[in-house]
Amino acid sequence: MKKRARAKAASRALGLVALGLLVGGQGSAPPSPNAVLETAAAGDWRSVPQEKLVYLMLGDGGRVVIELAPAFAPRHVANVRKLVGDRFFDGLSVNRVQDNYVVQWGDASEKRPLGSAEARLEPEWERAAEGLAIVDVPGPDGYAPAAGFVNGWPVAHDPKRGRAWLAHCYGMVGAGRGDTADSGNGSELYAVIGHAPRHLDRNVTLVGRVVDGIERLSALPRGTGELGFYESAGERVPIRHVRMGTAVPERERVEVEVLRTERPVFARWVEARRNRSGWFVNPAGHADLCNLMPPVRVRS
Amino acid sequence: MKKRARAKAASRALGLVALGLLVGGQGSAPPSPNAVLETAAAGDWRSVPQEKLVYLMLGDGGRVVIELAPAFAPRHVANVRKLVGDRFFDGLSVNRVQDNYVVQWGDASEKRPLGSAEARLEPEWERAAEGLAIVDVPGPDGYAPAAGFVNGWPVAHDPKRGRAWLAHCYGMVGAGRGDTADSGNGSELYAVIGHAPRHLDRNVTLVGRVVDGIERLSALPRGTGELGFYESAGERVPIRHVRMGTAVPERERVEVEVLRTERPVFARWVEARRNRSGWFVNPAGHADLCNLMPPVRVRS
Repeated sequence: MKKRARAKAASRALGLVALGLLVGGQGSAPPSPNAVLETAAAGDWRSVPQEKLVYLMLGDGGRVVIELAPAFAPRHVANVRKLVGDRFFDGLSVNRVQDNYVVQWGDASEKRPLGSAEARLEPEWERAAEGLAIVDVPGPDGYAPAAGFVNGWPVAHDPKRGRAWLAHCYGMVGAGRGDTADSGNGSELYAVIGHAPRHLDRNVTLVGRVVDGIERLSALPRGTGELGFYESAGERVPIRHVRMGTAVPERERVEVEVLRTERPVFARWVEARRNRSGWFVNPAGHADLCNLMPPVRVRS
Repeated sequence: MKKRARAKAASRALGLVALGLLVGGQGSAPPSPNAVLETAAAGDWRSVPQEKLVYLMLGDGGRVVIELAPAFAPRHVANVRKLVGDRFFDGLSVNRVQDNYVVQWGDASEKRPLGSAEARLEPEWERAAEGLAIVDVPGPDGYAPAAGFVNGWPVAHDPKRGRAWLAHCYGMVGAGRGDTADSGNGSELYAVIGHAPRHLDRNVTLVGRVVDGIERLSALPRGTGELGFYESAGERVPIRHVRMGTAVPERERVEVEVLRTERPVFARWVEARRNRSGWFVNPAGHADLCNLMPPVRVRS
């Protein structure tokens, strides 16, 4: 009886604070990441203009919104805009869902013309670090000499070479390619849905990040074919259409804001995630780049 | 016309080698991870005995198999065995699916007695490194002074303190707890389904790893409540029953083998993943601990 009562109490606590995400500042303990976030002023959030947003509408009405990254992949972003503008993706499908890796969508028939878009593009795997105000995060990165954020984007860089590149964190979107470096044109896109496959950095061009609705992709049934491709047409997940935000009727648009990574509040949030308080007994003293993806808020 | 033909060729290539996972050794290039794996001898694989396997059968017949880690969490593993033996989990449900984080299952009613199992257990967040033949992986870990594998398990450790602990990599299974360190008794279990939440290391007791059927959990619909809890009973995913492998009828058992992490073939596989060849133009020169989870093969 006593055991049961104790078990119940323990279980209740679990229901409320399971895995410690809801625990805020307690007394003089350092604040939780969420508590830090609550101190962010309106100006600490960057509003994403509709011309940078891609709306991917699935057959069941599910919406996935992607922010494009023209500062890192201008040619690929321009090509994606052409493909979207030409309605290339309308009626196509999600063809591949590989667990702990990627979801990929495009033309399963491999026959649809690319319209005004280019078929081949020089890769944009990295760029000059010059001109980027990278705010490094503390600690080793493993995959690069240094890493941090620029304007909300996860960026690894090599100060010696003066080069910087987007990192394959959860939710990042890239342009799949074939054997040649120039074969990724944006007509086959993928989103990361697992532990960051950072070995893809500087091998595929990243074009953006899913800022709303990643769970519409990450919870799709896994494909049972090689590389997680669906084995039959019936398994593929239909795409109703894809539109740039500017072409979406105003009442169907969402307002997307990303926490400004150059502001002190982001540094405080990073520190709170590196050393969690409250429920946590042993703060890690570290958080890797992809565990520090800046918060996004979305309003319909 | 020319453009179209070129587009088609590029797209075909994408379909075949998308994101480079199928590319093997090409000429004198270093072998791919899969090519290394093909060189593994029968003795390079460790067979997991049925007494270490937990079979979680979902309501729709989906099977999830977990290998327990008694070397790291003997008390918690013993408690889980009691709970399973007493059929504690039968008829319960998956109650929480938080995107890029965890799937959690247990007693949503918080009323079921724990039977012969303990309600409170001293945490097993770390153990003495002594007695563990840890094979370190190269490169910095960020979250710990060193990290590697023991008998297939991802282990971070601190040589100065002589302590070692399991790491929260994708697919790892832990015992959820409430506010107090001793409140995780194994009656609420979770599996990692996102980028490794290593900040949970040494804050929750890990008890095992999903070795088969993680996609039965990772592809479940996300909960829309706080922390990804399902908001209504109807959304919960029923658990038909949970059994130790020894209690599963022989024809329904699976044979699980894990690549032996102390063998040279594992070191070669790690190196192949750190520096990929073939499709990859820029090898990373690194792979983090959770991108090196040892391959598992399963036979029905």
